[in-house]
Amino acid sequence: MSEHDKEVTACLIIIGNEILSGRTKDKNLPYLAERLNEWGIRLREVRVIPDIEDTIVGTVNECRAAYDYVFTTGGIGPTHDDITADSVAKAFGVPLIRNPEALAILEARTRAVGFELNEARLRMANTPEGAILIDNPVSGAPGFQMENVYVMAGVPSIMQAMLDGLRHRLVGGKPMLSLTVRAYLPEGEIAGGLGEIQDRFPDLDIGSYPFYVKGKYGASLVMRGTEQARLELAAEDLRAVIRGLGAEPVEGDTP
Amino acid sequence: MSEHDKEVTACLIIIGNEILSGRTKDKNLPYLAERLNEWGIRLREVRVIPDIEDTIVGTVNECRAAYDYVFTTGGIGPTHDDITADSVAKAFGVPLIRNPEALAILEARTRAVGFELNEARLRMANTPEGAILIDNPVSGAPGFQMENVYVMAGVPSIMQAMLDGLRHRLVGGKPMLSLTVRAYLPEGEIAGGLGEIQDRFPDLDIGSYPFYVKGKYGASLVMRGTEQARLELAAEDLRAVIRGLGAEPVEGDTP
Repeated sequence: MSEHDKEVTACLIIIGNEILSGRTKDKNLPYLAERLNEWGIRLREVRVIPDIEDTIVGTVNECRAAYDYVFTTGGIGPTHDDITADSVAKAFGVPLIRNPEALAILEARTRAVGFELNEARLRMANTPEGAILIDNPVSGAPGFQMENVYVMAGVPSIMQAMLDGLRHRLVGGKPMLSLTVRAYLPEGEIAGGLGEIQDRFPDLDIGSYPFYVKGKYGASLVMRGTEQARLELAAEDLRAVIRGLGAEPVEGDTP
Repeated sequence: MSEHDKEVTACLIIIGNEILSGRTKDKNLPYLAERLNEWGIRLREVRVIPDIEDTIVGTVNECRAAYDYVFTTGGIGPTHDDITADSVAKAFGVPLIRNPEALAILEARTRAVGFELNEARLRMANTPEGAILIDNPVSGAPGFQMENVYVMAGVPSIMQAMLDGLRHRLVGGKPMLSLTVRAYLPEGEIAGGLGEIQDRFPDLDIGSYPFYVKGKYGASLVMRGTEQARLELAAEDLRAVIRGLGAEPVEGDTP
Protein backbone atom coordinates (compact mmCIF):
# COMPACT_ATOMS: atom_id res chain seq x y z
CA MET A 1 0.00 0.00 0.00
CA SER A 2 1.35 3.39 -0.95
CA GLU A 3 2.47 5.55 1.93
CA HIS A 4 0.25 8.31 0.57
CA ASP A 5 -2.90 6.41 1.46
CA LYS A 6 -4.24 6.02 4.92
CA GLU A 7 -4.44 2.31 5.51
CA VAL A 8 -7.94 1.07 6.37
CA THR A 9 -7.68 -1.87 8.75
CA ALA A 10 -9.90 -4.71 9.86
CA CYS A 11 -10.02 -7.57 12.32
CA LEU A 12 -12.05 -10.77 12.17
CA ILE A 13 -13.32 -12.41 15.35
CA ILE A 14 -14.40 -16.01 14.77
CA ILE A 15 -16.67 -17.03 17.64
CA GLY A 16 -17.24 -20.70 18.30
CA ASN A 17 -16.10 -23.69 20.34
CA GLU A 18 -16.46 -25.84 17.23
CA ILE A 19 -13.54 -24.12 15.53
CA LEU A 20 -11.29 -24.41 18.61
CA SER A 21 -12.16 -28.09 19.04
CA GLY A 22 -11.24 -28.84 15.42
CA ARG A 23 -14.77 -30.11 14.71
CA THR A 24 -15.44 -27.38 12.14
CA LYS A 25 -12.88 -26.00 9.72
CA ASP A 26 -13.35 -22.27 9.26
CA LYS A 27 -14.04 -21.17 5.70
CA ASN A 28 -14.89 -17.55 6.44
CA LEU A 29 -11.38 -16.17 6.91
CA PRO A 30 -10.20 -16.75 3.31
CA TYR A 31 -13.47 -15.41 1.89
CA LEU A 32 -13.35 -12.25 4.00
CA ALA A 33 -9.66 -11.76 3.23
CA GLU A 34 -10.25 -11.83 -0.52
CA ARG A 35 -13.22 -9.46 -0.42
CA LEU A 36 -11.30 -7.03 1.78
CA ASN A 37 -8.34 -7.06 -0.62
CA GLU A 38 -10.71 -6.00 -3.39
CA TRP A 39 -12.28 -3.33 -1.22
CA GLY A 40 -8.97 -1.84 -0.14
CA ILE A 41 -9.26 -2.89 3.50
CA ARG A 42 -6.36 -4.68 5.18
CA LEU A 43 -7.18 -7.63 7.37
CA ARG A 44 -4.62 -7.20 10.14
CA GLU A 45 -5.66 -9.76 12.70
CA VAL A 46 -7.94 -12.73 13.23
CA ARG A 47 -8.95 -14.14 16.60
CA VAL A 48 -10.74 -17.38 17.23
CA ILE A 49 -12.46 -17.38 20.62
CA PRO A 50 -14.89 -19.65 22.49
CA ASP A 51 -18.58 -19.09 23.25
CA ILE A 52 -17.81 -17.43 26.58
CA GLU A 53 -19.44 -14.09 27.29
CA ASP A 54 -16.55 -12.39 29.10
CA THR A 55 -14.15 -13.42 26.34
CA ILE A 56 -16.43 -12.12 23.59
CA VAL A 57 -17.02 -8.82 25.40
CA GLY A 58 -13.32 -8.27 26.06
CA THR A 59 -12.21 -9.24 22.58
CA VAL A 60 -14.84 -7.10 20.82
CA ASN A 61 -13.91 -4.08 22.93
CA GLU A 62 -10.19 -4.54 22.39
CA CYS A 63 -10.54 -5.01 18.64
CA ARG A 64 -13.08 -2.26 17.93
CA ALA A 65 -10.70 0.23 19.53
CA ALA A 66 -7.73 -1.04 17.54
CA TYR A 67 -9.12 -1.42 13.99
CA ASP A 68 -11.31 0.54 11.60
CA TYR A 69 -13.63 -2.42 11.05
CA VAL A 70 -14.35 -5.49 13.14
CA PHE A 71 -16.21 -8.46 11.67
CA THR A 72 -17.52 -11.31 13.77
CA THR A 73 -18.78 -14.69 12.60
CA GLY A 74 -20.78 -17.23 14.57
CA GLY A 75 -23.10 -17.44 17.53
CA ILE A 76 -26.24 -15.76 16.19
CA GLY A 77 -28.48 -18.83 15.83
CA PRO A 78 -31.37 -20.02 18.05
CA THR A 79 -29.57 -22.35 20.48
CA HIS A 80 -28.23 -21.83 24.02
CA ASP A 81 -24.64 -21.50 22.76
CA ASP A 82 -25.55 -18.58 20.49
CA ILE A 83 -24.58 -15.69 22.75
CA THR A 84 -22.96 -13.24 20.37
CA ALA A 85 -25.80 -10.67 20.32
CA ASP A 86 -26.02 -10.65 24.14
CA SER A 87 -22.26 -10.29 24.41
CA VAL A 88 -21.97 -7.49 21.86
CA ALA A 89 -24.73 -5.57 23.68
CA LYS A 90 -22.66 -5.89 26.89
CA ALA A 91 -19.53 -4.81 25.05
CA PHE A 92 -21.30 -1.60 23.99
CA GLY A 93 -23.01 -1.14 27.35
CA VAL A 94 -26.50 -1.09 25.86
CA PRO A 95 -29.52 -3.34 26.48
CA LEU A 96 -30.35 -6.29 24.28
CA ILE A 97 -33.74 -5.58 22.73
CA ARG A 98 -36.22 -7.43 20.57
CA ASN A 99 -35.54 -5.61 17.32
CA PRO A 100 -38.88 -4.81 15.61
CA GLU A 101 -37.41 -4.89 12.12
CA ALA A 102 -35.68 -8.23 12.77
CA LEU A 103 -38.90 -9.57 14.28
CA ALA A 104 -40.87 -8.62 11.15
CA ILE A 105 -38.29 -10.42 8.98
CA LEU A 106 -38.45 -13.56 11.14
CA GLU A 107 -42.25 -13.51 11.19
CA ALA A 108 -42.42 -13.31 7.41
CA ARG A 109 -39.77 -15.98 7.03
CA THR A 110 -41.24 -18.50 9.45
CA ARG A 111 -44.67 -17.99 7.84
CA ALA A 112 -43.18 -18.59 4.39
CA VAL A 113 -41.43 -21.85 5.34
CA GLY A 114 -44.17 -23.06 7.68
CA PHE A 115 -42.12 -22.95 10.89
CA GLU A 116 -43.43 -21.89 14.26
CA LEU A 117 -41.88 -18.70 15.66
CA ASN A 118 -41.06 -20.27 19.02
CA GLU A 119 -39.05 -18.84 21.91
CA ALA A 120 -35.76 -20.18 20.54
CA ARG A 121 -36.29 -18.64 17.10
CA LEU A 122 -37.43 -15.35 18.65
CA ARG A 123 -33.93 -15.03 20.16
CA MET A 124 -32.70 -14.40 16.61
CA ALA A 125 -34.70 -11.15 16.62
CA ASN A 126 -32.63 -9.80 19.53
CA THR A 127 -30.01 -7.16 18.86
CA PRO A 128 -28.21 -4.57 20.93
CA GLU A 129 -30.20 -1.33 21.13
CA GLY A 130 -29.22 0.94 18.24
CA ALA A 131 -28.08 -1.85 15.93
CA ILE A 132 -28.48 -1.57 12.16
CA LEU A 133 -29.47 -4.87 10.57
CA ILE A 134 -27.39 -6.83 8.08
CA ASP A 135 -29.53 -8.56 5.48
CA ASN A 136 -29.54 -12.37 5.31
CA PRO A 137 -30.91 -13.34 1.89
CA VAL A 138 -30.21 -17.02 2.55
CA SER A 139 -32.19 -17.89 5.67
CA GLY A 140 -33.79 -14.69 6.93
CA ALA A 141 -32.36 -14.21 10.43
CA PRO A 142 -30.34 -11.00 10.10
CA GLY A 143 -26.91 -10.00 11.35
CA PHE A 144 -26.34 -6.51 12.68
CA GLN A 145 -23.93 -3.62 12.84
CA MET A 146 -23.02 -1.67 15.99
CA GLU A 147 -20.77 1.27 15.08
CA ASN A 148 -17.70 -0.34 13.45
CA VAL A 149 -18.59 -3.91 14.49
CA TYR A 150 -20.34 -6.15 11.94
CA VAL A 151 -21.92 -9.27 13.40
CA MET A 152 -22.47 -12.06 10.88
CA ALA A 153 -23.49 -15.72 10.82
CA GLY A 154 -20.95 -18.53 10.97
CA VAL A 155 -22.49 -20.73 8.25
CA PRO A 156 -20.30 -19.88 5.22
CA SER A 157 -23.09 -19.44 2.65
CA ILE A 158 -24.91 -17.03 4.96
CA MET A 159 -21.75 -15.20 6.02
CA GLN A 160 -20.78 -14.69 2.39
CA ALA A 161 -24.19 -13.32 1.43
CA MET A 162 -24.16 -10.98 4.43
CA LEU A 163 -20.67 -9.71 3.65
CA ASP A 164 -21.41 -9.16 -0.03
CA GLY A 165 -24.40 -7.05 1.02
CA LEU A 166 -22.13 -4.85 3.14
CA ARG A 167 -19.95 -3.75 0.27
CA HIS A 168 -21.44 -0.28 0.00
CA ARG A 169 -21.46 0.30 3.76
CA LEU A 170 -17.67 -0.11 3.98
CA VAL A 171 -15.17 2.51 2.88
CA GLY A 172 -11.75 1.21 1.89
CA GLY A 173 -8.63 2.54 0.26
CA LYS A 174 -7.01 1.33 -2.92
CA PRO A 175 -7.57 -2.35 -3.73
CA MET A 176 -4.70 -4.64 -2.77
CA LEU A 177 -3.15 -6.17 -5.89
CA SER A 178 -0.81 -9.11 -6.05
CA LEU A 179 1.57 -10.63 -8.54
CA THR A 180 3.16 -14.04 -8.11
CA VAL A 181 6.21 -15.55 -9.77
CA ARG A 182 7.35 -19.11 -9.11
CA ALA A 183 10.94 -20.23 -8.98
CA TYR A 184 11.85 -23.90 -9.19
CA LEU A 185 14.71 -23.34 -6.82
CA PRO A 186 15.08 -24.16 -3.13
CA GLU A 187 13.87 -21.17 -1.08
CA GLY A 188 17.30 -20.87 0.52
CA GLU A 189 18.89 -20.14 -2.87
CA ILE A 190 16.63 -17.25 -3.72
CA ALA A 191 16.34 -15.74 -0.24
CA GLY A 192 19.32 -13.40 -0.62
CA GLY A 193 18.21 -11.81 -3.87
CA LEU A 194 14.62 -11.66 -2.71
CA GLY A 195 15.56 -9.78 0.46
CA GLU A 196 17.39 -7.19 -1.64
CA ILE A 197 14.29 -6.67 -3.77
CA GLN A 198 12.18 -6.20 -0.64
CA ASP A 199 14.69 -3.57 0.53
CA ARG A 200 14.36 -1.70 -2.78
CA PHE A 201 10.55 -1.92 -2.72
CA PRO A 202 9.54 -1.03 0.84
CA ASP A 203 6.06 -0.10 -0.43
CA LEU A 204 5.46 -3.74 -1.40
CA ASP A 205 4.90 -6.71 0.82
CA ILE A 206 6.94 -9.60 -0.58
CA GLY A 207 6.44 -13.14 0.71
CA SER A 208 8.09 -16.45 -0.11
CA TYR A 209 6.11 -19.70 0.19
CA PRO A 210 8.10 -22.85 -0.43
CA PHE A 211 6.69 -25.96 -2.05
CA TYR A 212 7.97 -29.40 -2.97
CA VAL A 213 6.17 -30.95 -5.92
CA LYS A 214 7.12 -34.09 -7.85
CA GLY A 215 10.59 -34.17 -6.36
CA LYS A 216 11.33 -30.53 -7.15
CA TYR A 217 11.87 -27.73 -4.66
CA GLY A 218 10.32 -24.39 -5.44
CA ALA A 219 8.92 -21.20 -3.97
CA SER A 220 5.95 -19.01 -4.83
CA LEU A 221 7.13 -15.42 -4.54
CA VAL A 222 4.16 -13.18 -3.88
CA MET A 223 4.33 -9.40 -4.25
CA ARG A 224 1.46 -7.36 -2.86
CA GLY A 225 0.78 -3.65 -3.16
CA THR A 226 -1.66 -1.10 -4.50
CA GLU A 227 0.28 0.03 -7.62
CA GLN A 228 0.39 -2.39 -10.53
CA ALA A 229 3.42 -0.65 -12.05
CA ARG A 230 5.44 -1.19 -8.87
CA LEU A 231 4.51 -4.86 -8.77
CA GLU A 232 5.66 -5.25 -12.35
CA LEU A 233 8.96 -3.48 -11.70
CA ALA A 234 9.68 -5.73 -8.72
CA ALA A 235 8.66 -8.81 -10.69
CA GLU A 236 11.10 -7.88 -13.45
CA ASP A 237 13.92 -7.69 -10.90
CA LEU A 238 12.81 -10.98 -9.45
CA ARG A 239 12.80 -12.74 -12.81
CA ALA A 240 16.37 -11.53 -13.32
CA VAL A 241 17.40 -12.96 -9.94
CA ILE A 242 15.80 -16.30 -10.78
CA ARG A 243 17.52 -16.42 -14.19
CA GLY A 244 20.81 -15.46 -12.54
CA LEU A 245 20.48 -18.60 -10.43
CA GLY A 246 20.09 -20.71 -13.56
CA ALA A 247 16.32 -21.25 -13.42
CA GLU A 248 13.41 -20.01 -15.50
CA PRO A 249 10.74 -17.90 -13.75
CA VAL A 250 7.16 -19.18 -14.07
CA GLU A 251 4.25 -16.76 -13.87
CA GLY A 252 1.50 -17.25 -11.30
CA ASP A 253 1.03 -19.13 -8.08
CA THR A 254 1.07 -22.90 -7.68
CA PRO A 255 -2.04 -24.37 -9.35
CA MET B 1 -14.02 -31.31 31.54
CA SER B 2 -14.77 -32.33 35.09
CA GLU B 3 -14.59 -29.56 37.67
CA HIS B 4 -12.20 -31.76 39.68
CA ASP B 5 -9.46 -31.38 37.10
CA LYS B 6 -7.40 -28.30 36.62
CA GLU B 7 -7.91 -27.29 33.03
CA VAL B 8 -4.70 -27.11 30.99
CA THR B 9 -5.01 -24.36 28.37
CA ALA B 10 -3.30 -23.46 25.14
CA CYS B 11 -3.24 -20.73 22.53
CA LEU B 12 -2.12 -20.93 18.90
CA ILE B 13 -0.49 -17.95 17.20
CA ILE B 14 -0.49 -18.28 13.42
CA ILE B 15 2.15 -15.92 12.05
CA GLY B 16 2.01 -14.94 8.39
CA ASN B 17 0.75 -12.32 5.97
CA GLU B 18 -0.22 -15.12 3.58
CA ILE B 19 -3.00 -16.28 5.90
CA LEU B 20 -4.36 -12.75 6.41
CA SER B 21 -4.29 -12.07 2.67
CA GLY B 22 -6.27 -15.22 1.94
CA ARG B 23 -3.45 -16.57 -0.25
CA THR B 24 -2.85 -19.56 2.02
CA LYS B 25 -5.57 -21.47 3.85
CA ASP B 26 -4.38 -22.52 7.29
CA LYS B 27 -4.39 -26.25 7.93
CA ASN B 28 -2.56 -26.22 11.24
CA LEU B 29 -5.39 -25.13 13.52
CA PRO B 30 -7.57 -28.25 13.02
CA TYR B 31 -4.56 -30.55 13.37
CA LEU B 32 -3.37 -28.92 16.58
CA ALA B 33 -6.92 -28.86 17.97
CA GLU B 34 -7.36 -32.59 17.49
CA ARG B 35 -4.00 -33.51 18.99
CA LEU B 36 -4.64 -31.26 22.00
CA ASN B 37 -8.06 -32.87 22.57
CA GLU B 38 -6.30 -36.24 22.78
CA TRP B 39 -3.65 -34.88 25.09
CA GLY B 40 -6.11 -33.24 27.47
CA ILE B 41 -5.14 -29.67 26.63
CA ARG B 42 -7.84 -27.14 25.78
CA LEU B 43 -7.20 -24.83 22.87
CA ARG B 44 -8.76 -21.61 24.14
CA GLU B 45 -7.74 -19.05 21.58
CA VAL B 46 -6.16 -18.68 18.16
CA ARG B 47 -4.68 -15.50 16.78
CA VAL B 48 -3.58 -14.88 13.23
CA ILE B 49 -1.10 -12.02 13.00
CA PRO B 50 1.13 -10.50 10.32
CA ASP B 51 4.93 -10.71 9.95
CA ILE B 52 5.45 -7.53 11.96
CA GLU B 53 7.95 -7.69 14.81
CA ASP B 54 6.11 -5.49 17.31
CA THR B 55 2.92 -7.43 16.77
CA ILE B 56 4.63 -10.79 17.25
CA VAL B 57 6.44 -9.61 20.39
CA GLY B 58 3.28 -8.18 21.93
CA THR B 59 1.11 -11.16 21.05
CA VAL B 60 3.61 -13.74 22.31
CA ASN B 61 4.00 -11.89 25.60
CA GLU B 62 0.26 -11.48 26.10
CA CYS B 63 -0.50 -15.10 25.30
CA ARG B 64 2.34 -16.75 27.23
CA ALA B 65 1.13 -14.99 30.37
CA ALA B 66 -2.49 -16.05 29.77
CA TYR B 67 -2.19 -19.73 28.80
CA ASP B 68 -0.29 -22.81 29.95
CA TYR B 69 1.03 -23.49 26.47
CA VAL B 70 1.53 -21.25 23.45
CA PHE B 71 2.19 -22.70 20.01
CA THR B 72 3.29 -20.60 17.07
CA THR B 73 3.37 -21.57 13.41
CA GLY B 74 5.14 -19.82 10.56
CA GLY B 75 8.05 -17.48 9.98
CA ILE B 76 11.04 -19.74 10.67
CA GLY B 77 12.32 -20.20 7.12
CA PRO B 78 15.32 -18.61 5.36
CA THR B 79 13.72 -15.53 3.75
CA HIS B 80 13.51 -11.88 4.84
CA ASP B 81 9.90 -12.27 6.00
CA ASP B 82 10.85 -15.05 8.44
CA ILE B 83 11.21 -13.04 11.62
CA THR B 84 9.64 -15.28 14.25
CA ALA B 85 12.90 -16.32 15.98
CA ASP B 86 14.10 -12.71 16.19
CA SER B 87 10.72 -11.60 17.54
CA VAL B 88 10.45 -14.36 20.15
CA ALA B 89 13.97 -13.50 21.39
CA LYS B 90 12.80 -9.89 21.84
CA ALA B 91 9.62 -11.07 23.58
CA PHE B 92 11.77 -12.93 26.13
CA GLY B 93 14.35 -10.15 26.36
CA VAL B 94 17.24 -12.42 25.39
CA PRO B 95 19.70 -12.22 22.50
CA LEU B 96 19.21 -14.14 19.27
CA ILE B 97 22.15 -16.53 18.97
CA ARG B 98 23.48 -18.94 16.40
CA ASN B 99 22.41 -22.15 18.10
CA PRO B 100 25.29 -24.69 17.88
CA GLU B 101 22.98 -27.71 17.94
CA ALA B 102 20.75 -26.23 15.22
CA LEU B 103 23.84 -25.36 13.20
CA ALA B 104 25.09 -28.95 13.37
CA ILE B 105 21.69 -30.20 12.18
CA LEU B 106 21.66 -27.76 9.26
CA GLU B 107 25.24 -28.60 8.31
CA ALA B 108 24.46 -32.29 8.20
CA ARG B 109 21.25 -31.69 6.29
CA THR B 110 22.67 -29.38 3.65
CA ARG B 111 25.57 -31.78 3.13
CA ALA B 112 23.16 -34.68 2.72
CA VAL B 113 20.99 -32.96 0.11
CA GLY B 114 23.86 -31.16 -1.62
CA PHE B 115 22.80 -27.60 -0.76
CA GLU B 116 25.17 -24.81 0.14
CA LEU B 117 24.85 -23.53 3.73
CA ASN B 118 24.59 -19.90 2.65
CA GLU B 119 23.78 -16.84 4.75
CA ALA B 120 20.03 -17.22 4.22
CA ARG B 121 20.00 -20.85 5.34
CA LEU B 122 22.23 -20.04 8.31
CA ARG B 123 19.43 -17.82 9.65
CA MET B 124 17.51 -21.02 10.33
CA ALA B 125 20.16 -21.91 12.94
CA ASN B 126 19.28 -18.80 14.96
CA THR B 127 17.27 -19.17 18.16
CA PRO B 128 16.74 -17.10 21.28
CA GLU B 129 19.42 -17.81 23.89
CA GLY B 130 18.29 -20.66 26.12
CA ALA B 131 15.96 -22.24 23.58
CA ILE B 132 15.41 -26.01 23.47
CA LEU B 133 15.15 -27.34 19.93
CA ILE B 134 12.10 -28.99 18.41
CA ASP B 135 13.02 -31.78 16.01
CA ASN B 136 12.10 -31.43 12.33
CA PRO B 137 12.26 -34.92 10.82
CA VAL B 138 10.90 -33.64 7.49
CA SER B 139 13.35 -30.98 6.34
CA GLY B 140 15.95 -30.55 9.08
CA ALA B 141 15.62 -26.92 10.18
CA PRO B 142 14.42 -27.18 13.78
CA GLY B 143 11.77 -25.31 15.71
CA PHE B 144 12.39 -24.36 19.31
CA GLN B 145 10.85 -24.02 22.74
CA MET B 146 11.27 -21.03 25.06
CA GLU B 147 9.62 -21.77 28.42
CA ASN B 148 5.94 -22.40 27.56
CA VAL B 149 6.22 -21.15 23.96
CA TYR B 150 6.67 -23.72 21.17
CA VAL B 151 7.80 -22.26 17.84
CA MET B 152 7.00 -24.45 14.85
CA ALA B 153 7.07 -24.27 11.06
CA GLY B 154 4.07 -23.16 9.02
CA VAL B 155 4.30 -25.85 6.32
CA PRO B 156 1.67 -28.37 7.50
CA SER B 157 3.69 -31.56 7.01
CA ILE B 158 6.57 -30.07 9.03
CA MET B 159 4.32 -28.55 11.68
CA GLN B 160 2.59 -31.90 12.18
CA ALA B 161 5.85 -33.81 12.55
CA MET B 162 7.15 -31.21 15.01
CA LEU B 163 3.99 -31.31 17.09
CA ASP B 164 3.85 -35.10 17.17
CA GLY B 165 7.41 -35.07 18.50
CA LEU B 166 6.36 -32.79 21.35
CA ARG B 167 3.82 -35.18 22.78
CA HIS B 168 5.97 -36.25 25.72
CA ARG B 169 7.08 -32.70 26.54
CA LEU B 170 3.51 -31.55 27.15
CA VAL B 171 1.49 -32.36 30.25
CA GLY B 172 -2.26 -32.35 29.83
CA GLY B 173 -5.30 -33.38 31.82
CA LYS B 174 -7.93 -35.89 30.83
CA PRO B 175 -8.48 -36.30 27.09
CA MET B 176 -11.45 -34.41 25.70
CA LEU B 177 -14.07 -36.83 24.42
CA SER B 178 -17.00 -36.06 22.20
CA LEU B 179 -20.26 -37.69 21.19
CA THR B 180 -22.42 -36.45 18.35
CA VAL B 181 -26.07 -37.14 17.59
CA ARG B 182 -27.81 -35.77 14.51
CA ALA B 183 -31.41 -34.65 14.38
CA TYR B 184 -33.17 -34.17 11.07
CA LEU B 185 -35.10 -31.26 12.51
CA PRO B 186 -34.67 -27.52 12.06
CA GLU B 187 -32.31 -26.23 14.74
CA GLY B 188 -35.04 -23.92 16.04
CA GLU B 189 -37.23 -26.91 16.94
CA ILE B 190 -34.65 -28.63 19.07
CA ALA B 191 -33.12 -25.53 20.68
CA GLY B 192 -35.45 -25.51 23.70
CA GLY B 193 -34.88 -29.12 24.72
CA LEU B 194 -31.19 -28.87 24.00
CA GLY B 195 -30.79 -25.85 26.26
CA GLU B 196 -32.45 -27.77 29.10
CA ILE B 197 -29.97 -30.63 28.65
CA GLN B 198 -27.07 -28.17 28.75
CA ASP B 199 -28.50 -26.80 32.04
CA ARG B 200 -28.61 -30.31 33.51
CA PHE B 201 -25.07 -31.14 32.31
CA PRO B 202 -23.00 -28.05 33.16
CA ASP B 203 -19.85 -30.21 33.04
CA LEU B 204 -20.40 -30.81 29.33
CA ASP B 205 -19.99 -28.41 26.46
CA ILE B 206 -22.94 -28.89 24.12
CA GLY B 207 -22.97 -27.30 20.69
CA SER B 208 -25.52 -27.27 17.87
CA TYR B 209 -24.34 -27.02 14.24
CA PRO B 210 -27.11 -26.75 11.68
CA PHE B 211 -26.96 -28.25 8.22
CA TYR B 212 -29.21 -28.36 5.19
CA VAL B 213 -28.68 -31.42 3.02
CA LYS B 214 -30.81 -32.65 0.11
CA GLY B 215 -33.68 -30.39 1.06
CA LYS B 216 -33.71 -31.46 4.70
CA TYR B 217 -32.91 -29.29 7.70
CA GLY B 218 -30.89 -30.84 10.46
CA ALA B 219 -28.42 -30.18 13.24
CA SER B 220 -25.35 -31.98 14.52
CA LEU B 221 -25.53 -31.90 18.30
CA VAL B 222 -22.05 -32.26 19.73
CA MET B 223 -21.42 -33.07 23.39
CA ARG B 224 -17.89 -32.69 24.71
CA GLY B 225 -16.45 -33.62 28.07
CA THR B 226 -13.92 -35.82 29.81
CA GLU B 227 -16.29 -38.50 31.18
CA GLN B 228 -17.72 -40.98 28.67
CA ALA B 229 -20.54 -41.94 31.05
CA ARG B 230 -21.74 -38.34 31.27
CA LEU B 231 -21.70 -37.97 27.49
CA GLU B 232 -23.80 -41.11 27.18
CA LEU B 233 -26.30 -39.92 29.79
CA ALA B 234 -26.73 -36.60 28.02
CA ALA B 235 -27.01 -38.33 24.65
CA GLU B 236 -29.81 -40.54 26.00
CA ASP B 237 -31.73 -37.43 27.09
CA LEU B 238 -31.09 -35.87 23.73
CA ARG B 239 -32.37 -38.88 21.81
CA ALA B 240 -35.57 -38.69 23.88
CA VAL B 241 -35.97 -35.00 23.00
CA ILE B 242 -35.49 -35.76 19.29
CA ARG B 243 -38.02 -38.62 19.40
CA GLY B 244 -40.44 -36.39 21.30
CA LEU B 245 -40.32 -34.01 18.32
CA GLY B 246 -41.27 -36.85 15.99
CA ALA B 247 -37.84 -37.52 14.50
CA GLU B 248 -35.36 -40.37 14.78
CA PRO B 249 -31.91 -39.60 16.23
CA VAL B 250 -28.95 -40.58 14.05
CA GLU B 251 -25.59 -41.38 15.64
CA GLY B 252 -22.47 -39.52 14.61
CA ASP B 253 -21.62 -36.27 12.91
CA THR B 254 -22.44 -35.39 9.30
CA PRO B 255 -20.33 -37.53 6.95
